Amino acid sequence: MTTDNNRVLIVGSVGLDAVSTPHGSVDRVLGGAASYSSVAASFFAPVSMVGVVGRDFPPENVALFESRGIDLSALEVREGETFFWAGEYGEDPNQAITHATDLNVFADFRPVLPASHCKLPYVFLANIDPELQLEVLDQMESPKFVAADTMNFWITGKKEQLLKVLGRVTLALMNDAEARMLTGRKLLIDAAEDILALGPRYVLVKKGEHGALLFSKDSLFAAPSFPIRKLVDPTGAGDSFAGALVGYLASTDDVSEPNIRMAIIYGTTVASFDVEDFSLRRLAALTREQIEERFGVLRSITAF
Amino acid sequence: MTTDNNRVLIVGSVGLDAVSTPHGSVDRVLGGAASYSSVAASFFAPVSMVGVVGRDFPPENVALFESRGIDLSALEVREGETFFWAGEYGEDPNQAITHATDLNVFADFRPVLPASHCKLPYVFLANIDPELQLEVLDQMESPKFVAADTMNFWITGKKEQLLKVLGRVTLALMNDAEARMLTGRKLLIDAAEDILALGPRYVLVKKGEHGALLFSKDSLFAAPSFPIRKLVDPTGAGDSFAGALVGYLASTDDVSEPNIRMAIIYGTTVASFDVEDFSLRRLAALTREQIEERFGVLRSITAF
Repeated sequence: MTTDNNRVLIVGSVGLDAVSTPHGSVDRVLGGAASYSSVAASFFAPVSMVGVVGRDFPPENVALFESRGIDLSALEVREGETFFWAGEYGEDPNQAITHATDLNVFADFRPVLPASHCKLPYVFLANIDPELQLEVLDQMESPKFVAADTMNFWITGKKEQLLKVLGRVTLALMNDAEARMLTGRKLLIDAAEDILALGPRYVLVKKGEHGALLFSKDSLFAAPSFPIRKLVDPTGAGDSFAGALVGYLASTDDVSEPNIRMAIIYGTTVASFDVEDFSLRRLAALTREQIEERFGVLRSITAF
Repeated sequence: MTTDNNRVLIVGSVGLDAVSTPHGSVDRVLGGAASYSSVAASFFAPVSMVGVVGRDFPPENVALFESRGIDLSALEVREGETFFWAGEYGEDPNQAITHATDLNVFADFRPVLPASHCKLPYVFLANIDPELQLEVLDQMESPKFVAADTMNFWITGKKEQLLKVLGRVTLALMNDAEARMLTGRKLLIDAAEDILALGPRYVLVKKGEHGALLFSKDSLFAAPSFPIRKLVDPTGAGDSFAGALVGYLASTDDVSEPNIRMAIIYGTTVASFDVEDFSLRRLAALTREQIEERFGVLRSITAF
């Protein structure tokens, strides 16, 4: 791998999922935040993935990553079993009920980046322990744009470390409930203001089917959602969104606010495909042409 | 009054409200769907209001309507008391708890239109008994655009008559919960499809702080909401929205789908002012310049 100006570094979980939704259920299918976000980003820019899997990780998953041109040189394969998550969604696609979280080889995961990876300009820190996110940041030389996702688990359990992460990223991602939980503020505008005060240049609050809000100290973007007819499996929607977002930014090498808006719309578009099938099935079959077509639909249904 | 091509007929309740919200409470202040929607529409087009009040209706309310140029020739004043509603909002601005609904003179209200009113081209049937909405429609000669609002109370209590109304209007307005209740469908896209099959050319589903969706058989518009910092009293937001929408359409005399999108954004804008204070206080102090300014903000925060 050669470092280039458009490559994205993605760090996070690569796992196997058992998922049940009103549309059916699947077992030991490809999952993990880094899987979704890397494949989503790969439609726009070259991706280097950092993570760990066990010896049981099915070769067809590796083949999928390779088919998307994803650099796996920093995807460790260790003795032991791959991270496993079992969960269920009822009628509310925003509420996963977790039945099992077996960290397995992920329990001892410490991201050690090859020298070439440390120079990469675009970084997505998927939802993992903020301590690990900090370790990645410590290894990066001078990234141009760092986006970090998080979740309620770290807000309650590792708040201090999470605040440090937020102080060092360009764009902080979280959902509306998490933004409220982190700040204790009810109005998202107020919550965002508090989060911006912690350091990130942008905070992007995801509202599921209601779109997303991008805040900076001097701007606001209210992003629409794509009207989804058939929501089969919401797993990975947020990761696909973030991956496509960072991938688009990297591909254009333009981190201006207007271009971040475009990146958010691409993220929304790719996430809308992700949820149409279980696991990464829909992403595996997706084409850039289909993304562009749906981007056009999103533009036309929001224009006034 | 002379009939003209841009005049809006608005039929609905004119009342007095006692409202309590986390921001305070007020008693016997101006309320009613026709009050909010007529004042909102008056920023764009001339308005003729049809309704009834009692002898107790405070003259300052009449003065407010007159200051907005609203034609009150079909606002009956009857012996008895004005319609009174007492309600409370907790943390959720979409959930009003009703403490009292005294119909008073409104109980026997039958809209009888002067001949001049029957010729008006733009009509807003605010949320009243669908039987009365039908009586209005029976009296209209050949309106160009009719919008009708409704609520859960009529969906459960007068469904048959409501379905008749929906078969005769251009645009049916309801909120997301009502669209689901009316059709028994969970996805709003499916609910809208069922409602369109009943006859209206458009169905506009209001989602409160999450914007609105305009559906027709061959188009979809996902309208944003305005990010409100200080929601003092949500009363009348939907009526202000609808009034401004129909008023803008009338003022431009253009009922094309792209222009309905513009009208929805104006509706969103005016509603965002309404909720900043109790009753019609903010609308009473509003100017067209302020509306245009906020319209511009809404455009800039949604552009990509």
